Amino acid sequence: MTANQPKQTLNVAMIGQGFMGRAHSNAFHQVTRFFDTPYDLRLKVICGRNRESLEAMAKRWGWEETSTDWEAVVARKDIDVIDVATPNLLHAPIAIAAAKAGKIVLCEKPLAMSVDEAERMATAARNVPNLVWFNYRRVPAVSLAKRLVDEGRLGNVYHYRSVYLQSWGADPARKGVWRFNRAEAGSGAIGDLLTHTLDLALLLNGEIEELSAMIQTFAPGREVDDAVLLLARFANGSIGSFEATRFAIGCKNRNAFDINGSKGMLRFNLEDLNRLEFFDATDPTHIQGEHQVLVTGPGHPYVDRYWPPGHIIGYEHTFISSLADFLDALARKETFHPNFDDAVRVQRLVEAVERSAKDGAWVRVEKTAPGKHKAAS
Amino acid sequence: MTANQPKQTLNVAMIGQGFMGRAHSNAFHQVTRFFDTPYDLRLKVICGRNRESLEAMAKRWGWEETSTDWEAVVARKDIDVIDVATPNLLHAPIAIAAAKAGKIVLCEKPLAMSVDEAERMATAARNVPNLVWFNYRRVPAVSLAKRLVDEGRLGNVYHYRSVYLQSWGADPARKGVWRFNRAEAGSGAIGDLLTHTLDLALLLNGEIEELSAMIQTFAPGREVDDAVLLLARFANGSIGSFEATRFAIGCKNRNAFDINGSKGMLRFNLEDLNRLEFFDATDPTHIQGEHQVLVTGPGHPYVDRYWPPGHIIGYEHTFISSLADFLDALARKETFHPNFDDAVRVQRLVEAVERSAKDGAWVRVEKTAPGKHKAAS
Amino acid sequence: MTANQPKQTLNVAMIGQGFMGRAHSNAFHQVTRFFDTPYDLRLKVICGRNRESLEAMAKRWGWEETSTDWEAVVARKDIDVIDVATPNLLHAPIAIAAAKAGKIVLCEKPLAMSVDEAERMATAARNVPNLVWFNYRRVPAVSLAKRLVDEGRLGNVYHYRSVYLQSWGADPARKGVWRFNRAEAGSGAIGDLLTHTLDLALLLNGEIEELSAMIQTFAPGREVDDAVLLLARFANGSIGSFEATRFAIGCKNRNAFDINGSKGMLRFNLEDLNRLEFFDATDPTHIQGEHQVLVTGPGHPYVDRYWPPGHIIGYEHTFISSLADFLDALARKETFHPNFDDAVRVQRLVEAVERSAKDGAWVRVEKTAPGKHKAAS
Amino acid sequence: MTANQPKQTLNVAMIGQGFMGRAHSNAFHQVTRFFDTPYDLRLKVICGRNRESLEAMAKRWGWEETSTDWEAVVARKDIDVIDVATPNLLHAPIAIAAAKAGKIVLCEKPLAMSVDEAERMATAARNVPNLVWFNYRRVPAVSLAKRLVDEGRLGNVYHYRSVYLQSWGADPARKGVWRFNRAEAGSGAIGDLLTHTLDLALLLNGEIEELSAMIQTFAPGREVDDAVLLLARFANGSIGSFEATRFAIGCKNRNAFDINGSKGMLRFNLEDLNRLEFFDATDPTHIQGEHQVLVTGPGHPYVDRYWPPGHIIGYEHTFISSLADFLDALARKETFHPNFDDAVRVQRLVEAVERSAKDGAWVRVEKTAPGKHKAAS
Repeated sequence: MTANQPKQTLNVAMIGQGFMGRAHSNAFHQVTRFFDTPYDLRLKVICGRNRESLEAMAKRWGWEETSTDWEAVVARKDIDVIDVATPNLLHAPIAIAAAKAGKIVLCEKPLAMSVDEAERMATAARNVPNLVWFNYRRVPAVSLAKRLVDEGRLGNVYHYRSVYLQSWGADPARKGVWRFNRAEAGSGAIGDLLTHTLDLALLLNGEIEELSAMIQTFAPGREVDDAVLLLARFANGSIGSFEATRFAIGCKNRNAFDINGSKGMLRFNLEDLNRLEFFDATDPTHIQGEHQVLVTGPGHPYVDRYWPPGHIIGYEHTFISSLADFLDALARKETFHPNFDDAVRVQRLVEAVERSAKDGAWVRVEKTAPGKHKAAS
Repeated sequence: MTANQPKQTLNVAMIGQGFMGRAHSNAFHQVTRFFDTPYDLRLKVICGRNRESLEAMAKRWGWEETSTDWEAVVARKDIDVIDVATPNLLHAPIAIAAAKAGKIVLCEKPLAMSVDEAERMATAARNVPNLVWFNYRRVPAVSLAKRLVDEGRLGNVYHYRSVYLQSWGADPARKGVWRFNRAEAGSGAIGDLLTHTLDLALLLNGEIEELSAMIQTFAPGREVDDAVLLLARFANGSIGSFEATRFAIGCKNRNAFDINGSKGMLRFNLEDLNRLEFFDATDPTHIQGEHQVLVTGPGHPYVDRYWPPGHIIGYEHTFISSLADFLDALARKETFHPNFDDAVRVQRLVEAVERSAKDGAWVRVEKTAPGKHKAAS
Repeated sequence: MTANQPKQTLNVAMIGQGFMGRAHSNAFHQVTRFFDTPYDLRLKVICGRNRESLEAMAKRWGWEETSTDWEAVVARKDIDVIDVATPNLLHAPIAIAAAKAGKIVLCEKPLAMSVDEAERMATAARNVPNLVWFNYRRVPAVSLAKRLVDEGRLGNVYHYRSVYLQSWGADPARKGVWRFNRAEAGSGAIGDLLTHTLDLALLLNGEIEELSAMIQTFAPGREVDDAVLLLARFANGSIGSFEATRFAIGCKNRNAFDINGSKGMLRFNLEDLNRLEFFDATDPTHIQGEHQVLVTGPGHPYVDRYWPPGHIIGYEHTFISSLADFLDALARKETFHPNFDDAVRVQRLVEAVERSAKDGAWVRVEKTAPGKHKAAS
Repeated sequence: MTANQPKQTLNVAMIGQGFMGRAHSNAFHQVTRFFDTPYDLRLKVICGRNRESLEAMAKRWGWEETSTDWEAVVARKDIDVIDVATPNLLHAPIAIAAAKAGKIVLCEKPLAMSVDEAERMATAARNVPNLVWFNYRRVPAVSLAKRLVDEGRLGNVYHYRSVYLQSWGADPARKGVWRFNRAEAGSGAIGDLLTHTLDLALLLNGEIEELSAMIQTFAPGREVDDAVLLLARFANGSIGSFEATRFAIGCKNRNAFDINGSKGMLRFNLEDLNRLEFFDATDPTHIQGEHQVLVTGPGHPYVDRYWPPGHIIGYEHTFISSLADFLDALARKETFHPNFDDAVRVQRLVEAVERSAKDGAWVRVEKTAPGKHKAAS
């Protein structure tokens, strides 16, 4: 495609108008500014239940139309992309309908309320391009971590440690949000936070074979978990631990991991997302120490598309970069990751976590045989 | 104004298509998304010398028209705002012409090539709303620093320390850029970096009365300064030092300051722009220590407009927030800061720096009497 | 006691001449220099198996005599204090013999090879002053943490996280050390590292009621564990995790914990032992952030005995401060902590950890009823 | 010398009983414990004016005798080493007398009250082994910095930045100390703090050719400077700045420097003295970042003499390591650094600083021609 050739335009419909709706809207606008995308995007319809806020949001974020009927939107011939940014309860029905209608489907995480649901979604989406918004894979520092792992710079991995620490679960002002409602959210910290970190672990350290978990709800009367902790054995022989909580007073959004391998260590923390720490055990002994890499280029993933080295980016850019990669894969007819199949793997881990916590026992994680999802009826 | 009332639209023309052109274009789009602005903005014309890149940039960033004739653009009746994002050489002619044409004028820093030029610009702009893009005032952490100073949390200030450390001046690949050309840039690290830090010092610590400076060019044959250092006495009785350099290998964009007062200390570093360190000497002795404030709300300047607490923002947001404040001031018919008059104060400091370095002597800084700029001829 | 009154002298015999032997020797000398101790100490006998190295060590560290027969040493009438700094295997026989001989007994951690052994030691030591060298309680920052907990500054605790990360287990040069020998050491990271962190958890967060653990040996053919991880439920309703490993490449001696409560957070890391991080959720919202407390006084535990504020201390000072407190308690005829009874509690946790890891199941921790140790035969 | 051969014993007399008296006493004891010194040391006499405190200090720190007559002590035949730890005023008379008496002379910094005095001291000490207690050269991280400089790992140096920030000058409780008395101290922050940092600069970056300084006294009625700042040009073409202050509220003992060269950057801070940051610009681009080197071995200067890797040391160890090197040089009949000649260089800089601040002008620093000190009369 040359610069003069007009690009194909994809018409997007987004279902949802909350925090994620804003983050996605922003990405749909910004991706074509910062990246050389093979497609133009048109923000065609925003769909939600509250009509008043919907109008305001459409105006603010440049959506051409509004709708309160997602089924009608999914049925529209002029829509190419359905983006699901609703509470978790609606992910499956909308995504499955959209996939059946042949749409490109983008869906927020956690993909589903259960493994069964996730598998039906993955099966439905088998033949359409799809994405799950595990956006933290595209933090430049995380992508760099993946590159260092792939370059063999960690050697054999011994330890993987992950925490996702937030504190708003203890805030009485947040009492009524849907994320505390079991019917809508399915779970608490597990679906909201732990799934992010499990996805990163799968990316960076591979399959988890077995785990032992505990779940805790601190707030009286709350329907969902406030915190989850687990121990894990990975297929690569390393061992690890995970924690996700909304009761870590003092931490706002500390999604952090560290990995120790025979040749080095990696450390990352989302509250400081422009940095990656890398201890290189192959450095001369007297200058060994964590390299504090300011991941703003040159030579770093994604960030050369934004600003010059040293000019940091933020949370929102992870959505933009995810979308850019998705559009590239789409144009090249390649499979994008993380997709629905990847999210099924996360969902299996979630199910194992919940089972382990309930039974107070170690649980082996069921492997997902590729292509073996049950057919959606 | 109610939500239903259509907002007045301001038509914007931007002269320039480089790094700053991108940053401003982004801000013109994003400000209405993240802020409840009293105006809508229309990206009407982008103006530059290289037609080919101009077309590409217009397309990418949504400018409706292009032009290679800034004088024609300034003369257009339908343009409300002229944004000057050119090399420094052109700031004065364009801004003065725009001001004379009654336009709202936004101008990149450093405002001018000399105090004389700056004063003529300020005089010309006396009757039009104007802004200088000293964007770092609107880093949320910097705005918070200002708030803490205003709350008296530092007490009497003893020390102000500022460094702005970059390293690209030593990079042979960057050889030909206009920023190394004296005719276009006027100066090197002084205009590019030191002016930012002087503006912040004026904001946070008030007037500088005298200074002793040194200037250094490391690169053979380079026309402009690579580094500048100075000692200063402030009107409030504190003493300070400043350094700006493009030869601080190891630092990408370390615009940092720290302030010690009788009641506390502040520390900031642009490479970690979502944090402010505050040592509160009024804390109980045994728990005194720098508070590592993650300035992402709640209760923090600007950031509540972007994402929830703990979701960090980046460099580009400083332009968006500056513009939002400017539009608010415009609607309220209030004077915005930093404006051309503020930039004249910076320019006087720059002149004092250059004189001091040339003479190897302490120099008293000329005070700018308000309203006493020479008339532009 | 006045300054002029001669102090009673305690004659010390130390069994052991390794790393801990050096650390204790240093403490025996330094405690009277830095603290106003109620006793003088005389380094009377050092006892060990390797006579050659023993002579050199005695000379270097000022021990008056050497011996290779610990039983003879324990039987000496002129010895007041027996300090056990041997490999773990010998802790019990020496400590029990010393206690039966009426000596003051100091013993390295882990106290014992089993709960049974630990209880017999505690029973034997019931009537003699005793100490276990869980020296990290006296890191000034840890003591400050305890003070903040006691002041109620954390509120209700939700989370306790602990890691003790070392990397020398992967170093082939360290192959033959006794710490890898099951007969002499009993365990690996568990006894060496985890016991330290369990002791701190008991100090700072109280009893652990149940736990689920995993143990891993990475080095082929190694007899002891290289790593241990566990999840825990505390009696105070909080939940937690622990990890201790000798395979955390990149970490030398990272004994770290963090605690989240309803009113604040604490963070500590032994590699930076002069600092404590305290997030005070009762600070005004806009200045909330981890206080980086440089725990070097004034108003901080122990450090006023060493150097002026800002002059940091090191690892060795934890032994000195422990000893100072012990001697004070001795003079006041008060029970010192941590003592053998405290170490029994740790040993019960260790046993639970090993059982849990073996069975792959959660284990309830047996409570130690005070005074209910089995009688030593 | 074999291990069995008895080592020669040096009899030490120390004049002074304050903070430095304690630090030196400690070093005299500890050096033979941690290092294989070629000499044994005997703490023979401590000399001071306040007899009561002197007795207590002698007892506590193991000095065999006390004296209130330093001249008598210097005259004693059985004394090999005179250590001067008095207020600055007495450095010259004692050190000169000791040197003339053929003693080994150790002297606290700042060496003297003037260049003239310093030169007379250096001349007097020409023929006796001598040391100045610029102890921070032997912080392991500083020694490592020197090694990296010598290995060429910084390339051509562009920038040297140094601050020494303390805050006790603002503490009313410290009002009467001799360090605020001009007659006894000579100067304030200059002699106490700046001399340390100038000595490190000379070590790490070589001669300073010219400088421009300012001096400030904040406390009303105080006789000495509270703060000093200066700009400098080094002989190697780099430029730098120095600041020393006792009014940096929020900082206890922040003696910090950073150096930028064509190939890397170094950063050090005494409040975190076990770490050195090294940015290696020769690392692959994508993993460039400050190496956070925990300077506790293996392969690091001095620290292998203390504890295993990861076990940090403190302030006091810098005196021990200095003394160890001095004794080694003594046995090898080599010149130790920093010695009186080195301190003369620092004193010349101090004089230039004071002159520059007084005149408000740049000052060229007089070079010390080796062996050209004026003869002491």
